[in-house]
Amino acid sequence: MKVIVDFCITPLNMGTSLTPYIAECQLIIADMGLSHQLHAYGTNIEGEWEPVMEAVKRCHARLHEMGVPRLSTQLKIGTRSDKEQTMADKAEHVQAFIAKQSQ
Amino acid sequence: MKVIVDFCITPLNMGTSLTPYIAECQLIIADMGLSHQLHAYGTNIEGEWEPVMEAVKRCHARLHEMGVPRLSTQLKIGTRSDKEQTMADKAEHVQAFIAKQSQ
Amino acid sequence: MKVIVDFCITPLNMGTSLTPYIAECQLIIADMGLSHQLHAYGTNIEGEWEPVMEAVKRCHARLHEMGVPRLSTQLKIGTRSDKEQTMADKAEHVQAFIAKQSQ
Amino acid sequence: MKVIVDFCITPLNMGTSLTPYIAECQLIIADMGLSHQLHAYGTNIEGEWEPVMEAVKRCHARLHEMGVPRLSTQLKIGTRSDKEQTMADKAEHVQAFIAKQSQ
Repeated sequence: MKVIVDFCITPLNMGTSLTPYIAECQLIIADMGLSHQLHAYGTNIEGEWEPVMEAVKRCHARLHEMGVPRLSTQLKIGTRSDKEQTMADKAEHVQAFIAKQSQ
Repeated sequence: MKVIVDFCITPLNMGTSLTPYIAECQLIIADMGLSHQLHAYGTNIEGEWEPVMEAVKRCHARLHEMGVPRLSTQLKIGTRSDKEQTMADKAEHVQAFIAKQSQ
Repeated sequence: MKVIVDFCITPLNMGTSLTPYIAECQLIIADMGLSHQLHAYGTNIEGEWEPVMEAVKRCHARLHEMGVPRLSTQLKIGTRSDKEQTMADKAEHVQAFIAKQSQ
Repeated sequence: MKVIVDFCITPLNMGTSLTPYIAECQLIIADMGLSHQLHAYGTNIEGEWEPVMEAVKRCHARLHEMGVPRLSTQLKIGTRSDKEQTMADKAEHVQAFIAKQSQ
């Protein structure tokens, strides 16, 4: 089962700059060879269900190892059985639709 | 790693009543013996990371089998390394705090 | 426009116990006379769009006043134009469906 | 109060292609002059609290006008009182941190 997720992990009680923790998660996701895209309020990841969810789990485990006592993640999970779709497709379809309308 | 999640699965293109799909997910979660609590906008589940995430996966797989072409899940995932906490604790602490203040 | 939301506010850098902040938000929501229900990973609120969103805004403003430097909220917002539905309806429909099936 | 949100609106019972609805929301947000960025699983928007939340409301109202009977939105809302931060800052900080570490 292919999945596209939007992953946003929030460490509590570690100051207001979350950069080192988000960076660590980027490396974990990249090391697993998963296609991903950082945006201003999370990271989109695509792949098979197991490795994508394994990446999320490794991020929680690693940040706890780094000393974060409490984590709250917001995860959107999209699956479809009607057709394959990539992260790139999703945004492109919307932009192409808008471009066509404004001609 | 213990986890408390808030799980809300949305089937697309299956009408506006999602009751049969939500009910099916309740049965999947209950069959796995996971502690859970349905509320008006999702279901809280607590347990070890693997079975809880396995429940979410089974819900996606089962709803696709039932003919749902596209699913979008919203999942909040809470973990902590400082202490154990149950779903019941979380709401009770808030209610006890309010009760104490209003004395 | 009627709305049912699931509201979960996360204060950053304020320790791991969020109870005083969640309690403060409960009081703000109650003071506005909004129907609401605390659960283990958020609070469901129902009402007209404006007061419900005003409650969310007041919670952010108040927690910043209490000294919280950074807040991240997760909000699910449900609206429908086909029929009116209450928070109680939503969970009851699912439980009635399960009860009927297991007869 | 400045806010950065991640907005993802899901129309129910309108087929599996949500492109026309997402495109309509992009136009509403752009017409309001709000800084925004579409990604594969939502749209980040930044601005003052009121116009950003007004944009979300207009999207719900407009999609119901277009015939969508039921909508479920996932909204992340970030505010901070310690400093100003833009959407661009957030992703850039993470990328700069990773670049520095890998030198």
